[in-house]
Amino acid sequence: MDFNIIRAARAVLHVQDLEASRKFYVDALGFIETESDDQHIYLRGLEEHNHHSLVLKKEQEPGIEVISYKVQSDGDLEILAKFFDEKGLKTKWVEKGKQKAMGRTLRIQDVSGLPVEFFAKMDVVERMLQRYDLYKGARVQRIDHFNCMVEDVQKAYDFYINELGFACSEYTAAEDDQIWAAWLHRKPSVHDVAFMNGNGPRLHHIGFWLGEPMSLIHTCDVLASMGYTASIERGPGRHGLSNAFFLYLRDPDGHRIELYNGDYLTSDPDFEPIRWDINDKRRQTFWGHEAPDCWFNEASHVLDIDSGKPLEIREPKLKKRKPTFVI
Amino acid sequence: MDFNIIRAARAVLHVQDLEASRKFYVDALGFIETESDDQHIYLRGLEEHNHHSLVLKKEQEPGIEVISYKVQSDGDLEILAKFFDEKGLKTKWVEKGKQKAMGRTLRIQDVSGLPVEFFAKMDVVERMLQRYDLYKGARVQRIDHFNCMVEDVQKAYDFYINELGFACSEYTAAEDDQIWAAWLHRKPSVHDVAFMNGNGPRLHHIGFWLGEPMSLIHTCDVLASMGYTASIERGPGRHGLSNAFFLYLRDPDGHRIELYNGDYLTSDPDFEPIRWDINDKRRQTFWGHEAPDCWFNEASHVLDIDSGKPLEIREPKLKKRKPTFVI
Amino acid sequence: MDFNIIRAARAVLHVQDLEASRKFYVDALGFIETESDDQHIYLRGLEEHNHHSLVLKKEQEPGIEVISYKVQSDGDLEILAKFFDEKGLKTKWVEKGKQKAMGRTLRIQDVSGLPVEFFAKMDVVERMLQRYDLYKGARVQRIDHFNCMVEDVQKAYDFYINELGFACSEYTAAEDDQIWAAWLHRKPSVHDVAFMNGNGPRLHHIGFWLGEPMSLIHTCDVLASMGYTASIERGPGRHGLSNAFFLYLRDPDGHRIELYNGDYLTSDPDFEPIRWDINDKRRQTFWGHEAPDCWFNEASHVLDIDSGKPLEIREPKLKKRKPTFVI
Amino acid sequence: MDFNIIRAARAVLHVQDLEASRKFYVDALGFIETESDDQHIYLRGLEEHNHHSLVLKKEQEPGIEVISYKVQSDGDLEILAKFFDEKGLKTKWVEKGKQKAMGRTLRIQDVSGLPVEFFAKMDVVERMLQRYDLYKGARVQRIDHFNCMVEDVQKAYDFYINELGFACSEYTAAEDDQIWAAWLHRKPSVHDVAFMNGNGPRLHHIGFWLGEPMSLIHTCDVLASMGYTASIERGPGRHGLSNAFFLYLRDPDGHRIELYNGDYLTSDPDFEPIRWDINDKRRQTFWGHEAPDCWFNEASHVLDIDSGKPLEIREPKLKKRKPTFVI
Repeated sequence: MDFNIIRAARAVLHVQDLEASRKFYVDALGFIETESDDQHIYLRGLEEHNHHSLVLKKEQEPGIEVISYKVQSDGDLEILAKFFDEKGLKTKWVEKGKQKAMGRTLRIQDVSGLPVEFFAKMDVVERMLQRYDLYKGARVQRIDHFNCMVEDVQKAYDFYINELGFACSEYTAAEDDQIWAAWLHRKPSVHDVAFMNGNGPRLHHIGFWLGEPMSLIHTCDVLASMGYTASIERGPGRHGLSNAFFLYLRDPDGHRIELYNGDYLTSDPDFEPIRWDINDKRRQTFWGHEAPDCWFNEASHVLDIDSGKPLEIREPKLKKRKPTFVI
Repeated sequence: MDFNIIRAARAVLHVQDLEASRKFYVDALGFIETESDDQHIYLRGLEEHNHHSLVLKKEQEPGIEVISYKVQSDGDLEILAKFFDEKGLKTKWVEKGKQKAMGRTLRIQDVSGLPVEFFAKMDVVERMLQRYDLYKGARVQRIDHFNCMVEDVQKAYDFYINELGFACSEYTAAEDDQIWAAWLHRKPSVHDVAFMNGNGPRLHHIGFWLGEPMSLIHTCDVLASMGYTASIERGPGRHGLSNAFFLYLRDPDGHRIELYNGDYLTSDPDFEPIRWDINDKRRQTFWGHEAPDCWFNEASHVLDIDSGKPLEIREPKLKKRKPTFVI
Repeated sequence: MDFNIIRAARAVLHVQDLEASRKFYVDALGFIETESDDQHIYLRGLEEHNHHSLVLKKEQEPGIEVISYKVQSDGDLEILAKFFDEKGLKTKWVEKGKQKAMGRTLRIQDVSGLPVEFFAKMDVVERMLQRYDLYKGARVQRIDHFNCMVEDVQKAYDFYINELGFACSEYTAAEDDQIWAAWLHRKPSVHDVAFMNGNGPRLHHIGFWLGEPMSLIHTCDVLASMGYTASIERGPGRHGLSNAFFLYLRDPDGHRIELYNGDYLTSDPDFEPIRWDINDKRRQTFWGHEAPDCWFNEASHVLDIDSGKPLEIREPKLKKRKPTFVI
Repeated sequence: MDFNIIRAARAVLHVQDLEASRKFYVDALGFIETESDDQHIYLRGLEEHNHHSLVLKKEQEPGIEVISYKVQSDGDLEILAKFFDEKGLKTKWVEKGKQKAMGRTLRIQDVSGLPVEFFAKMDVVERMLQRYDLYKGARVQRIDHFNCMVEDVQKAYDFYINELGFACSEYTAAEDDQIWAAWLHRKPSVHDVAFMNGNGPRLHHIGFWLGEPMSLIHTCDVLASMGYTASIERGPGRHGLSNAFFLYLRDPDGHRIELYNGDYLTSDPDFEPIRWDINDKRRQTFWGHEAPDCWFNEASHVLDIDSGKPLEIREPKLKKRKPTFVI
């Protein structure tokens, strides 16, 4: 069955202080602020023609309300709802008008417990790609992917590949050939979503795509000049896995953002997933730098789609390791 | 009907002097030479896992033998053959073994007279994306698109959109709203193929994608230092249409190559094709430079798939203009 | 005699509309505005610790009031005044307090008729080099050089080399080995001042130095997005002479600004001036693009240091040519 | 007294395996190999018109034979010899013909015990600045500076500033305002030589200047693809002190090389040395990354100009600290 999932499209983040978030995302990183009110800031990248790819929602505790995928049409949502119901997964409709700029959406709790949303319609706004006079900071172009820590990567992998129709670009195999981490895509890039073995379900980071690498260096300089040195968690560096030139940042609530440039086209059926052995020396990032422990241990809590409470976190099935090769 | 066309995938160029071509493509531009013999050089970009995206074939006269699209499976070729036969277009099978590294291919002469080929299978080779020690010149990553001059753009547009399942990202409209040029894609980038009004059928250029913009500047420097100043035809510049940072080169046989970086994702069904009025002042390239006349007037001859002779060139239906906004 | 001239340091430009100038220099190019009043805007680059390197002064007609060099100490000004008096050149003291932020300055009309000023003291202000949050547009770092059109290059060359203690880095020689253009420096870069054969005396352009080349590309994009397409006169390109990666702009009054990156260290006494033959094919810019006619013909009028009236312009001694190799 | 010292100009390194060194410096980093024999490799950067800026000399043990400064004329050497003799410092003439491509040189053991050499003449060779076809790896343009660990920074500072005529651009002050580290220059950049408090005398690193920052990123990729991950010791990063975009590498013998881009012009007498407090939070590199311990503890042994034996290393006068702010 083909659910016509197009791509990773937006995330709804709970943050505690909208002004602090605005300073980080808008003033420093240069996201376009499409709209805001007392409870929300709606952000998008320079090439995005949809209303937003990131919602910052003021709440008492930081958390991830949903990560959202765009599908071809509203009809696909009905088919997805039926499918998830049959699989016994919790589903919930959010009707048009309940969320700013959004059509009807389907929220589910996926096989790993992650709060996932599907939608077909979001308001269309002006693209700023050629408004170079507005470029600043990281010059973020668009949302690229989600990276999730889950307790059972194989289970998530099987579900997304076999049921939802994702393809695998690269993966890490443990000693017994079990999948320790996997990068899966619908759009023909390295990923729309990655799953890695760890205390989960949690969201490890949201990746945003930059048009060229010098913006990533400039981001470090801008952040440092604004006093955000502590927000630079890892990088700049090159991932062996995915070939991305990366920078990991922590926002004022601790949510992790990856700035990302340099992957490749994965459109072809004869492209074989690239296997990385967990004992391969190349587990280190391509240039040899180790990731800091916080990058491995810390991640954002995800919420129950009904109660809005943080999900319980469980120990992973496979051995935890400092996954310095992981993106 | 969905023919599962994936992307623009390769071109077969007739050239007169393989050594001259090798010096230009391999020594200067840095293409990877996968293989060669007395009659052919097979080239690929740094991220390409297929045997080649460009074949240089030694012949008496320069010309374009075919431009090729990759499809999902051999079964799709059968369906395509049936479709083209029904449409009354000339088709020709080239069996596996007849072309180096290729499976069975289907060649056709399309509605504009262009020699087009479809294939599902090409030998897989080592990707050089992380062999940075081999990077040189333009650091070409992959083939991106074909740009064709045709006498009737509307006819080509209708056929590729309505019959072959391409989508339109951007187009130029003449006074009476007729389509003067159009950018069409299967993979979610700005284009796999563009058609523009002009003496045709001819191939205007083949576009190759670069990973970042400084390689394009370095290409100019390398070409100049090797005596290829006359090969730099247009650019570097920014296209308003497509937003590409571009450089147009002429190879030793006059075939035109575009180095290209900076377009955007076109995956979404609610992305409306961008209309450019032919009298819009923005017809000039984004920075205001005019294209030279040769860029407008000169293009490569295309060949009959049976006889191998150059196709007759006809005057276009719409008025010719110096399309400085065209990519 | 050593006059301890340090470097090209500032220029005073007459402009007709301060708001139009501010939009161009501050909003688009990203110069730091140190201070302004109804009649002046004082601008500096990101690394400059002195109050300004460019003064925009509101006047009825565009013109160049002076180009200024910094010297080691006020004592050097006295020695220079005596020297110019002995040479019979017109001199004029401007006392401290007459010009914002300036100590005492010595103005002269040089051997070519150019209005030149020397000073030792200018107010020191905060350097913005590490205020990356303020970087925008061209990210201009500092003033680099003046380029002047004069009727007798040999005469200017002899005076600056033999009398003022400049060194020559590169020059262009006409058929009979006469110097057609010359690049002269005090600081160890390619130039603080260049003289080229043409209707003069006029100021051809002021060069500003950028820290890296991508800012130059971004400048084109920003200018185009703000409607300044007509201000992009030439480039981006590479100069054979000086190796500079360049962009020539025209400000709202027609004054020409060069953005410039990529030259080299000229500190060594055994560095031989590089000779370029005027009939050398490399007269073209390194990549082969021709300069537009306006770049050759148009330049800013310079003013008499006493009357403030434009100097009479005379035909040059050597044949005029479109000097596409000239910087 | 003015000794007319121009700039840091070359170093002579003892290495154990010329082939291993060639692979690192020539194949990976892209230095131009001017000449070589069984015992030496002579290297230079792309813009250098002198025969070499780095000599690799095959010896049993790694070490630093000399670091060399260029002076204006041979006459300056005589004056320097007299001066050092009077100061009671050990001097030694190396006559023309004893060292490849060199005129007469004066070697001394400076106040810190460092082996320092002065020369006025070196053979002139072809500059490769516009041979872009030969650019590879780091695209090193020229030698920039030496960084030395000494037991008494104040003593070195006083000698170089008060006796040899260097100027200070930036320095680090300990609690009691004693100078903990200092950056000194003759050419108007941030430094020709830096001294920092530590076990000495030792050479901490030799800095080479790159024309633009992307080459530094590419160097990491090239080194990683060639198996030199362990050679990447620190960076890429931005120094607060000097503003340099930096990368520290260890060559096959452990000698440390800095690739360096992004400092500024220091020509002006009113440029006040920038003071960095050792307890300033900005002691960390500008982006907040800490330097690894090896960067702080390890450095190259320097040799006695007469015996060729390694100099005894002494504990520094000031407290050792992990100087993460140091360049």
